[in-house]
This record gives sequence, structure tokens and C-alpha cells, in this order.
Amino acid sequence: MKKVFLFSEGNASMTDLLGGKGCNLAEMTALNLPVPQGFTISTQACLEYLENQTLSQPLIDEITHAIHSLESICNKSFNDPHHLLLVSVRSGAKISMPGMMDTILNLGLNDENVVKFAQLTNNERFAYDCYRRFIQMFANVVDGIDSQHFENCLKEYKTKFNYQTDAEISAHHLKQVVKDYQDIYYQLLGRAFPQDVYQQIFQSVEAVFKSWNNERAMVYRQMNNIPHDLGTAVTIQEMVFGNQGEQSGTGVLFTRNPANGTNELYGEYLVNAQGEDVVAGIRTPMSIRRLEALQPEIYQQILDLTQQLEDHYQDMQDIEFTVEEGTLYLLQTRNGKRTGHAAIKIAVDMVAEGKLTKEEALMTIDPSSLNQILHPTFESQAIHQAELITDSGLPASPGAASGAIVFTAEDAKERSEAGEKVILVRHETSPEDIIGMNAAEAIVTSQGGMTSHAAVVARGMGKTCVAGCDELEVNEASKTLIYPEGILNEGDIISVDGSTGKIYLGDLTTVAATVNQDFDKVMSWSEEIAKLKVRMNAETSNDIQAGLNFGAVGIGLVRTEHMFFHADRIKEIRRFLLTNNAHERKDALTKIRDFQINDFKAIFKLTQDKPVVIRLLDLPLHEFLPTTHKEIQKLAESLEISVASLENQILNLKEINPMMGHRGCRMGLSYPELYLMQGEAIIQAAIEIQNQLENTQIKPEIMIPLISNEQELILLRKQIKKHLDAFQETAQQSIHYTIGTMIETPRACLIADKLAKDSDFFSFGTNDLTQLTFGYSRDDAGKFLNHYLHTGILSHDPFQTIDSEGMIELMSLAVDRGRQSSADLKMGVCGELGGDPRSIDLFHRIDLDYVSCSPFRVPIARLAAAQAAIYH
Amino acid sequence: MKKVFLFSEGNASMTDLLGGKGCNLAEMTALNLPVPQGFTISTQACLEYLENQTLSQPLIDEITHAIHSLESICNKSFNDPHHLLLVSVRSGAKISMPGMMDTILNLGLNDENVVKFAQLTNNERFAYDCYRRFIQMFANVVDGIDSQHFENCLKEYKTKFNYQTDAEISAHHLKQVVKDYQDIYYQLLGRAFPQDVYQQIFQSVEAVFKSWNNERAMVYRQMNNIPHDLGTAVTIQEMVFGNQGEQSGTGVLFTRNPANGTNELYGEYLVNAQGEDVVAGIRTPMSIRRLEALQPEIYQQILDLTQQLEDHYQDMQDIEFTVEEGTLYLLQTRNGKRTGHAAIKIAVDMVAEGKLTKEEALMTIDPSSLNQILHPTFESQAIHQAELITDSGLPASPGAASGAIVFTAEDAKERSEAGEKVILVRHETSPEDIIGMNAAEAIVTSQGGMTSHAAVVARGMGKTCVAGCDELEVNEASKTLIYPEGILNEGDIISVDGSTGKIYLGDLTTVAATVNQDFDKVMSWSEEIAKLKVRMNAETSNDIQAGLNFGAVGIGLVRTEHMFFHADRIKEIRRFLLTNNAHERKDALTKIRDFQINDFKAIFKLTQDKPVVIRLLDLPLHEFLPTTHKEIQKLAESLEISVASLENQILNLKEINPMMGHRGCRMGLSYPELYLMQGEAIIQAAIEIQNQLENTQIKPEIMIPLISNEQELILLRKQIKKHLDAFQETAQQSIHYTIGTMIETPRACLIADKLAKDSDFFSFGTNDLTQLTFGYSRDDAGKFLNHYLHTGILSHDPFQTIDSEGMIELMSLAVDRGRQSSADLKMGVCGELGGDPRSIDLFHRIDLDYVSCSPFRVPIARLAAAQAAIYH
Repeated sequence: MKKVFLFSEGNASMTDLLGGKGCNLAEMTALNLPVPQGFTISTQACLEYLENQTLSQPLIDEITHAIHSLESICNKSFNDPHHLLLVSVRSGAKISMPGMMDTILNLGLNDENVVKFAQLTNNERFAYDCYRRFIQMFANVVDGIDSQHFENCLKEYKTKFNYQTDAEISAHHLKQVVKDYQDIYYQLLGRAFPQDVYQQIFQSVEAVFKSWNNERAMVYRQMNNIPHDLGTAVTIQEMVFGNQGEQSGTGVLFTRNPANGTNELYGEYLVNAQGEDVVAGIRTPMSIRRLEALQPEIYQQILDLTQQLEDHYQDMQDIEFTVEEGTLYLLQTRNGKRTGHAAIKIAVDMVAEGKLTKEEALMTIDPSSLNQILHPTFESQAIHQAELITDSGLPASPGAASGAIVFTAEDAKERSEAGEKVILVRHETSPEDIIGMNAAEAIVTSQGGMTSHAAVVARGMGKTCVAGCDELEVNEASKTLIYPEGILNEGDIISVDGSTGKIYLGDLTTVAATVNQDFDKVMSWSEEIAKLKVRMNAETSNDIQAGLNFGAVGIGLVRTEHMFFHADRIKEIRRFLLTNNAHERKDALTKIRDFQINDFKAIFKLTQDKPVVIRLLDLPLHEFLPTTHKEIQKLAESLEISVASLENQILNLKEINPMMGHRGCRMGLSYPELYLMQGEAIIQAAIEIQNQLENTQIKPEIMIPLISNEQELILLRKQIKKHLDAFQETAQQSIHYTIGTMIETPRACLIADKLAKDSDFFSFGTNDLTQLTFGYSRDDAGKFLNHYLHTGILSHDPFQTIDSEGMIELMSLAVDRGRQSSADLKMGVCGELGGDPRSIDLFHRIDLDYVSCSPFRVPIARLAAAQAAIYH
Repeated sequence: MKKVFLFSEGNASMTDLLGGKGCNLAEMTALNLPVPQGFTISTQACLEYLENQTLSQPLIDEITHAIHSLESICNKSFNDPHHLLLVSVRSGAKISMPGMMDTILNLGLNDENVVKFAQLTNNERFAYDCYRRFIQMFANVVDGIDSQHFENCLKEYKTKFNYQTDAEISAHHLKQVVKDYQDIYYQLLGRAFPQDVYQQIFQSVEAVFKSWNNERAMVYRQMNNIPHDLGTAVTIQEMVFGNQGEQSGTGVLFTRNPANGTNELYGEYLVNAQGEDVVAGIRTPMSIRRLEALQPEIYQQILDLTQQLEDHYQDMQDIEFTVEEGTLYLLQTRNGKRTGHAAIKIAVDMVAEGKLTKEEALMTIDPSSLNQILHPTFESQAIHQAELITDSGLPASPGAASGAIVFTAEDAKERSEAGEKVILVRHETSPEDIIGMNAAEAIVTSQGGMTSHAAVVARGMGKTCVAGCDELEVNEASKTLIYPEGILNEGDIISVDGSTGKIYLGDLTTVAATVNQDFDKVMSWSEEIAKLKVRMNAETSNDIQAGLNFGAVGIGLVRTEHMFFHADRIKEIRRFLLTNNAHERKDALTKIRDFQINDFKAIFKLTQDKPVVIRLLDLPLHEFLPTTHKEIQKLAESLEISVASLENQILNLKEINPMMGHRGCRMGLSYPELYLMQGEAIIQAAIEIQNQLENTQIKPEIMIPLISNEQELILLRKQIKKHLDAFQETAQQSIHYTIGTMIETPRACLIADKLAKDSDFFSFGTNDLTQLTFGYSRDDAGKFLNHYLHTGILSHDPFQTIDSEGMIELMSLAVDRGRQSSADLKMGVCGELGGDPRSIDLFHRIDLDYVSCSPFRVPIARLAAAQAAIYH
């Protein structure tokens, strides 16, 4: 099987084998675009390497053969000092993993040919600068030497000879730097820097293969739900040089604005630099549009070619290019990452431009990216009064977040795990910071542009980010942040506005996200197309209103236990549970009932004729009980019982495994009056609101939790129905209510045919069902789940995205058996996975009727539901 | 559909409809045996009644019609004072429930016809005694009046007029008693005792129907795994009178001795009495054999008829009969309950007698009854030295038990729940005592015979029982027990020998059960026939030796965590878990390894070439940690860390739901050195023992617990295999070991096809699988499980007998998928259900290879496995 492909031998359909980058270069070659030529070593070769930990001889032969072909295509050679071939070695997985894999540039140089290269380019300074960079990258990527060793060496020269920038360093000094670098290499590794070009290539290829399994890559894959068994391709490509002088340069651009979606060329250009300079954010580049003035022909060529690429790929493109002494080369193109705002605008615009159908347009939007536009912003009043720290930053990733300043990824992780909200403030970020970035509310950097590591990763994560705040001086060692007006220390609170790039002192009030017409359009297209309906999980008026604004078609889960934690209520529930006096018990229950009537009235007032699933109390009773001695003392007094006897009662209610204990319907059967009281409160509230509103049918759907046995459901349903029917008769008014069950134990799935006979609806509780199917306690799984994710034992967290094997099989079986008994049984999901796009895709496939999720995820779910319908 | 059947209309195949009793009476009628005639109202009618809570008119008509037929068959009538028909009304479920359902005798009497009845029988005393009994039974069964009201009234007469026994009370006084009884009835209910015979009948039928759902019946069904939806039939039968004088009497007999199985007529006879007197144990009857002297023809007739019945039913029969003025009537026959010893002897004898095949004989033995013969007896030395309390009792149910005296069922329950062993001592027991009997180690009564309530129920439960100790005076009110030599109080310890009937002071040492040749024969037949093999769950030498003696073919589960709780070991495991010093860690592990090598050597020495499944450590780590402050302080000192830091570490290991937490393979993956150490210890031990024994292959089967994910198994198996293969290479010796997995999470069942690829065997952990399938924490389920069993929400405890719906479906699916991948994959059960006969039947049906259970249940499992093979 062929494992090495020249660019001219590949095409866009070969991403599995060539990775995204290799594929695109092949495709661009086929489009006759100006692409430096090269070849790609397949992901298959990578997997074989990872299995055997050595490059096979057939692969070595194939690579050698491809090098000879490339030499003849370019009319250059590694051995021909007059037409010297230098190459880059880059990774390229099927799914883009920016900044995560390693790259080596200028490969092919050695002590001998660098002299000829200097003569050839007529630029000694340039030649040795290339060599210096190559040594540093090779040493870092292949041999794991910290770049800091080399940076420090360079810094010494700059200090000693008073150079302001790297570009000023003389050829003479660069020659010495190259020597020093080779000394550093020798000192640290005990062997000389390799002079043989083939050795350089094979070692680099191995390094790229290995980097597939480095920790940063593993973490990135885990965070982005990318399977661990894809492997990476390696692309070897002729070097072109953006750092050959003022007529050279390198840039990154997007065919549309990735932050807000405006249809304009958007990007950055760095004169006399190599691509890594832009991505690393070490020098702040200029806007791409300034190139129009500097090199108008090049600018026009860029406009034409990039438009051609966008049209070809039918999506906004993210393009890397280099200008070598006035000649434009395209190095890479891929579908551009974008903010949620941009994704929506681009989708709507491309439909309006006639370039995409609605369905195609919807497929270009990553549902998770909507997270960003659904986040709150700072209140304008608060901004007005706030003290500005700086407005020198770039709005790299929208959102508004406040938190305590931390200066390292470790601190971010630690403090956030301790429950604190933190803002990670860095000079610049690097892949090592990923975990800390994930833990932070927002990221602030003092250097780097919109395409710097911090910016790209933050946008991917949906985190607020302000990049390149050059007014700020970040001092990691002393943990201080100096800004124009003062100094901040670790732990000081700041507020970061990712949409404006401004940073403020203190904790600013936020307001809910507002959405625009484009958003509405996308949502209405989604609604047209989706088969799955989207409800919300909500109890409070604020949440319900937000969910309604976002288009929820009802409530899929009211968690009544959430209503019991107010001090005045918990007092009554404790009285109910702990008194032996029948009268007190009844009195407590009446008080709780009155609270609940008001709760439900508030809900129905908002939801009106939309269906509302209300789950009856589902909580281990002991969670209602006091824990501190003081509380216990106080409660014992008010109940007129002894502290010892109260302590004993509390002890009796303690459970070893409360998740599988006396809760849900089991409690409903032990304390029938609780469920009857709740049912009564629901009907009473519905009656009152129905009478207030004209022509409105309140539609409560009463849900019984934790069923694992047919009889539990039959009994409770009968009890509740009997009680409510009598209640309605007394009230001389009737409400169209239904009674259904949660499906959240494996056994409930297996006996779904029986449960369906006594259910008006099913609602899958994916959280508990996941816990029981795997035998993972969600509260405790942290002790091993991270380890499982890091080492690939699990490809993803089953509490975040549904397990597509065991869980989906159980659910699918429950759906089939349920429908067998009751063909038009309504079925939904109310667990937390109801808002996860990949899970929604699977829920669509097993033919559920609706999902329910938190209000702010409703739009995401609506879009994901539409995508599922389009895709399948 | 016909709902009422004359005896002549039924036959033995109609148990579903007519119940055991109705069926047998029909069958006996068909055999032309002397059976008082009558008819049976079907279980179907009962279920309809329970549904509608009223007797339907068609049913009333059918019953009325049957009464008319019966009147014509008997040539008697309810209305004809010269040929007065009196009847009994009895319950009769499909499965016999002795003492649990209610019976009414002498129905048909009223104030008017009792006068004629006296004339007709020429026995006024008899007639009024019948009426008195009828009133009492009717009032109790139909109207729920406590019999004590009537007993007290009777006692007053006896005291006042100095009667020693009931039989002495004069006709004159009995007439007054009847009046007094009617007054009591009127006072308590506010209405007169019913005089209309049809009213008496219909009310009685309703009462029997209702009694199906009384609490005693529910508890009995639950304890005996009888479904709640069968209903009971009602048999109405012409009365014959055993209490018509000295030529009359009533008896209960077994065709063979139900205690030891000897082929001899065995039973009791009470002169001038009704059947209830025998069963209730109020008067102590004489041996049936004394009837030979008293009424030789009757005795011969009994011998002939009962032999005919045993031959007909091909099983030992339990027969009730009455002699009415020299005429024998058979009232009932059924397969007799028997002790395990008796069951085995009868089975072996009946094969030897040529009456049964081996298979038929095995089917007559209730596997659970073997429990009795496998129980320990008192050491003879201990008996020799012990102080005898009494030897006046009957050996009602074999076994040997010691415990604290309690006098009420409530006390028995309470103390036993508090962990104390108790002996329930009663005057006599009644169905109300069932729960207390179940809680007690043994039951002692001062009255009643071998067929008294206490004796029958205790045998059924496999509880030690000594009945009818007439030397003892039980005083429930003062909670004292007076015996010939002294007085005992509640809480005093006694020892009860159910095989000899003797009771001793203090706590006597017991010795293990010994078995006889008949037992061996039954076991060898079982082995021939069974498809399922039987292994044991055991770690200690004692247990392993016991299991081997009982014919276990290997060990199905060594729980290595049980080996860690000795003080010297727990110290090392704590050191391993809590030190930060790598050297200490390694040292601790080495010490643990050496302990384990000795553990495994002890096992292999006994099991030799039998397979031994060793489960790698499966316990939440925090269970190894100290809990008291003192322990923590001591440990902190020895580890040279601060108490605070140790407390913090312990807190970190705490889990919310430890059952679903960081245990099993999850821990094995976090601490790989633990599993590798265990694997090494297993192989080292196997090598040493294999070298000691000649021509023996040690066969360790290493089992990885709590798998829910393919990768967990692949990784651990690879690690362990690599380590052990290297270890064997170093040792220059190799052991034929295998590596398999437990199947104990629902997900493991679902992905069994994948797991099979990396497993040499599967072992179902039914305990955890039940917990996860239902979502029941076994440790906490007590809070609702009893309620579920009492109310019929669950028909049985799924931790005692496997759930035949969800659980069996999951297991069956795992078996099929496992075999799909690996056709000859060995599969067994090592959970606690592996020793339960009904579960074994299901395990046979889903085609497992073996079950594993506690050593003392091995014979039960072997027999149950044979029965499953015979039955299916």
C-alpha cells in the first residue's frame, strides 16, 4: 500500500490518509494555485510507526523516492549547492489541531551548504538566520531541548551588541550564534548536530509521528472529542522564504472576518518574517490590508486567489501564505475557525449571496460556537463607572468574564478547582498552557495578534480572550501585572470584555446575551428542518424567560427538589420528616403545598400553553437535613425533641451509596403524601393560571423518577391519578395533565414495553443512566475519569457526550420496546446530554421526539437538531 | 367460564384453578377413596373477587347450584333438620401455604337447627360444642374478632365450675357459652350473629378470598417465593366429626417419617377432637401407631389407603383424616414437607424400591432443604458437659443453635436486627409470629406436636425447632422461662438441638455437618445429570476444605481483598497507599506480596489441579484506612507524617457513592503495581506448589473486576501478561494461567462481544450487576426493599433470587455476544445468587458453564443444577 504521495497525486477526498493539510495542498496543486511543491506521508504510516516504534525500510525507500521526485519537480537538490532544496516538515491530522503538533522549517541546511546558500541567496545574514532557526526548531522538536536555551543565547548577543530586534543582528554575529547553538546542542545531548540531510528528514518525520501522542495533543483531542486512533500525516514541502528582506513576508488571512463574519479580507502580515513568527505571536503583525499600499499586485493576487479558494471550498477559508522576494506562495488553506457571531453571519450571507443552500449554510456553523453569542456581556452602566485598565488589546474571543488574576496555568487550575473564578494573564500562551486556559474564565495576553495561540485556542474553547495588550507588563516571576495607572497582584479581580478588548478593574455586572436577526434566521431555518424539538430544563422565572426567548417549545424538566432549598421551605420539609406529631406533619405539608402552588403558578404564567414536565421530588431525604451541630441544636429545639434523638434520626437517614438509595419513586412510595401534595399543587396552580389567562390550556406533564420496576409505576400512577381526579372533581374544573416516567435505570430500559403501558411519556435521564450503565458515580469519577481520558481508555467523557455503545443501545432498545406497546408514546431526553451536539445527533438517530437542556444551550440544541436531520 | 366444580368434576391436573387441596380432593374422589363430598370455587373466582371486591351474581348462582348438587349427593340438606348438612370452608392455593389461610368448620348451624342437630346426633353436648366452635371461627375469620375474647369466656366457665379440660364442660354450660359468644359478637360488632346459612356461606367465601392478601399470607409468599397473583380456591366440604366421642377422632399423618425419612407410618391422632386441635397444637396428640391398639380395623384401613395414595402420587404424602364414630374419612392429601435428611432418604429409598427413577427421585428433594443437613451440630464433648434444661421436647426441625432467649416475635426481630442471636421461646406459635421466627436462630415451644404451627413453619424455614416441651413454663408477661431446675430470663443464653429435642444452658460449641451415604448417592446422581458445574467462593483453608468435601469442582471466586484485613497486612497496605517515599512504598509492596504468596500457596495446596479463579483486589481504597482518631494518630506517627496531612489524605479518598467509585480495575489502572504484585504472587505460589506436588497442574484463573470498558481490560490484561511472562521467564518455569473478566456492570454485558476478545473466561458478578441494573444500593435498599416485598411491588428480593426479567436478559445477551466472539469462552456466576436454586435454574437455561457459591451451599447448588437439567 502506497504511503507517500506527491501533492500532484492527492486530492481533497483523501483527508483520512493525507490529513487536512496534505489534502489541501494537493487540492490547491490541482487548482493550479502557486503552492510550493512537496509530498505527504500518510496517517497510515504514522499508525504503523506508533505500533512498531521504528520507520520500516519500505517506508524509508518510499520517502527517498519521493525526495528524488520532488528534487526533479523543483529543479533543486539537497546536494546541489547551486539549486539548494530546503524543506519544511509539518504535521497534519485529519482534523485540524492548531498549535498542537510540531513543525520544522529550513530543513536541509548544514555547516557545508549554508555557505553556498549564503552565496546563492546573496544574503549571508539570511542564510545563517535560517540555519539558526532550523537548529533551534530541530533541537526542540526532535530532541526535546527547551527553546529557552537558544533564546537566552540570542538575547545575550542582543544585549551585548545593543541590538533592538532580531533583524538587526549582523551576519557575523549570526554565524557565531549558529556555532553557539551547535555547542548547546552538543553539551545537552553529547553528540553533534546532524549534518546528513536524510538523517535530518527521518528524525524529523519520527518526531512528528511521536508528537501525535504527546500530552498536549492528547489533551487537545480529549477536549475536542477527536478520536485518538487517527494518527497524523507528515507533509514535506519546499521552503519559500518570507524573511529574505523587505519584499518578502508572511501572513495568515481569513476570507471573511472570523470575529464578526463581515465579508472582507481579514488577516495579518509580517514583513521579512517566517510563518512561525505570526503564529507564535512574538512580533505583532500589521493588518493584511496595509499590504495593498506596500505591494499592490501581491494584494490583488491574494484577493483573487483567496476568493477562488472560498468558492471552491464553499466555506470561509483560513489561509497561510508567504511572499518570497515579490512572489506569492500559498502554504495552506482550511475552513476557518470563527466565533459564533461570525459563523451565523457568514452562513446567512452565503445563502444571500447564492453560494449555499440553507441546509449547506447550517452545516457550516459549529453548534458549540453559539455558546459565545449566548454569553452575557457587561452592563453598560457598570462599564461607564468602571476603572479601565487598558484598551490596548485585541478582541480575540468574545464574551465577558470577571475573576482573580493568575499568572500560570498551574495556578489557574488549582484555584479554579478550589472553586474560584480566575483570569489567566500571560505574556503569551503556548500549548503547555492548555489546561490552565481551560480552567480560566478568560485569557489575557500582552503580546500576539488575533491568530496567536491564545486567540485561536480561546475561540475554539468559547472562552473570553483579549490578546496583545501591549500596554501591559506581565511579570510571571513576581506575579505582578503593571498597567499604565498602577500595579495588580495575583488574586486581584479584573473584568475582561472579549468583544471590545477592554479590561477593567473589579467585578462588573453582566447582562444576558442579545441576539440579532441573523441569529433568528438561523434558528428559524433550524426549526424548519429539525425533527427533534427542543425544550429547556428550568425552574426559575429568569431561566424560563431566557429559554422561551431562545425558542424552547416547553419545559422538559422542572426539578422540584430545587424549590425546597430556601430556608423557609427547608424548615417545613424538616418538620414533615422529623416530627412524630401527625398534626404538625400535616401542617408542614400544607405549608409546603402552598409554596409549591406559587412555584408552579410562576412557571405556568410564563409557559402558558406550552407543555411542562414536572418531576416529582427526587432527592435522598438526608440532603434536606441539617449537618452542623448548631443547626441540629436549633432544629431539635424547634421540633421539641432531644438533640440525641434528632441526631439518631439523621443517622438513620444516612446512606452508603445515596445515588442508588432511598430516593425518587422509592421515597414517593414510602411517603405517598409528598407526591400527592405535589400533584395537587400542580393542578391547583394550573387551574388558577388557566382561569387568569383566556383561551389557554395549561399542560402539566407529571413525571415519576427512578422507576426500575413496573409495579412502582403502576402503584404511584394509580395513587396520583385517583387523588388528582378527586381533587379536580371537588374543584369542579379539570386540567389536561399527563403522567409519565423517567427512564434512568438500565432495568427501566429493558422493561420499557411494560412501563409504556402506564406512561403517557418517557423522559430519559441520561445522567443517572450513564452512572448505572458504567457503574460510575459521577461525584467520584473524578478520581479516575481524567486518567481514563488522558490515556485514551475512554475516548470522551460519557457525562458530556453520550456513550455511543452501551448507552445508546439501551436507549434505542427502550425506544423500540416503548413504541411497541404504545406507538405514539412521546419520548425525550432531560439529562444534561440533551444540550450536547454530538449526543443530539445520536438522539435524532434513535428517533426521540425532543431533547431538553439548560436555557442557554437551547439555540445550540436547535441547530444541532437541524444538522442531525440534514446529515441523516 | 365455569367457576365452581364438584369434587367429581375435577382432577389432579387442575391445580391452577382448584388449588392443591381442591385438586387432591377431586383426585381422591376419582380414586374412590372415602372423602366427604363437596365442591371447589376456583382461584379465578378469587381473582375476580379481589379485583371487584364483591361476589358477582353469576358466581352466587353457581355456588347455590353446587350446594343443591351437594345436598343431593350427601342426601342431606341445610334445611332438613333430620339430615342436616354442615360444611367446612377452607382455602386452598395452588402452592400449599400451611397455617397461613383461614378455615371455618361446622358452618350451617344456627340457633334453630342446633336443637335438631343435638337430637339427630343424640349428643346435645357435641352439638353445642360444634356451634360454639363455629361461632368463634366465623367471628374470627370473617369479622376479625380476636379469638381471645371467646377463649377467656370459656376459661371463666372452666375456672368457675372447675373443669380441667374443654371436653368436661357440660352441655348445659355449653349452651350458655353459645349465648355468651353471641353476646360478645353483638357487643363488638353491633349486629347479631348471622342465622341465615347462605349468608354464612357467602360471607365465609369472601373472607377466604380476602385472606389471600392478609399480611401473614403476603409474608409467607414472599419468604417462599410464591407469586402474589395466583389467588386461592375455596373448598366447601361436608363436615365429618372427629369429636363425636371416644370412637371418633382426627389425625394427621405422613406416609414416611418426615424428620428422618424412615419408611414407616408417621403421625398423630387425637381422640374425640376436630382437626384444628391437632394443627393448632393446643392438645398434645398421641402417636398414630397407638391407634392400632384402639381401633385395629381403622388402623389397617389407614395403612392401605395411605399406601395407595403414596403410590398414586409417587411421593411421600401428608394426609389429614377424621374418624367419625368408627368410620374413616380422608380429608386431604398432599406431598409431605420433610427435612433435608428425610428428603434424601426417601428419594434414595424410593429408587431402591423401584418406585422412582433417579431423575424422578431427585425432583422430590427441595434443594433448600439440604440446608438443614449441612448445618453444624453440637460437639459431643460440649453436650456431655452442658447443663440440660429439658429433654421433654420433640425434635421438630433439625439443627443446632444458640442464642439469647426472647419471648415475643417483636423482641426477636428487634434484637436480631441489632445483631444479636436469639432463640424465640413461646407457649405455642401462630402465624403472627412468622417474622419473629424468621429472625430467630431457633424456636422452642412448650406445647404442640410435630405438626404444630411452630414445627411445620420451622422445617420450612430450615430453622432449628424443639416443640412441645411440656416441662417448660413460658411466661410472656414476666418474660421468664421456668424449667425443672430453675428460672431463665430474657437475654439468657440457651442452646437448642433440633435433632434430639434437647435444650441446654449456655452457648455450646458446634461441629460441622457430616453427611451419609444416601447424601453421597444423591450428589453423585446430581453430578451425572447436571450440566452446570459447581464451584465455591472461598479463601480460607477451612472453607475450601468444606467446599471440596461437598464436591466443589474448583474455586469460582477468591476475594483477595479479604486477605488484607489482618492487622499486619493492613499496616503494609496503608504504608503503600499513604507514604510519599518510593522506597517505603516498594518495601510495603514486597511485604504484601510475601503474604499473598503464602495465601495462594495455602489455597493451591488444597485445590491442586482444580481451577481457581482469583479476583484481583476490588475494594474502595478508603476501606483500608483508619477511621478513629487514635488509629489515625498512630498511623501518622509510624509514617512520619502529620495527623492533619494524613486526615487530609483520608478525606481525599472518601467517596460519595463508593460502590460506583474508585475500585476494581479502576484502582488497578491507577496503581498498576498492585495488580502486578498480585499476579506475581499467584504465579510464584503456583510454581512452588506445583513443584511440591507431583503430576499436578496448578490452574490459576486471574480475574479482573468491574470492567465497563473494553480498553480497561485490554490495558490491564496486556500489562499483567507482559509482567507475568517476564516473571516466568526469570523463574524458568511456567504455569498454565488464564486471565478473564468479571461481568458486573450493565455496559460490560452490552459489550461482551468485545470483552470476549480479550478474556479467557467471564464470571458474572450478580451482586453488583443487580445493584446497577436496578439502581439499588444493597447497603441501603433495606430502607425500601422490605416495603416493596410486603406490598408486592417486588415479588422477591433480587439479591436473593435473580431477577428473571432485566437481569436475565442482560446476562443472556452477554452470554450470546461473548460466545459470538469466542465460541468456547468459559462462563460462570460468582455472585451470591450462584447458590440459589431458582437462580440456578435460570443460569442453566442461559447456558452458563458453572456457578460458584459458598461452600455450605455447594450440595444445594449441585442438586439444583441437576434438577434444572432434568426439568428443561
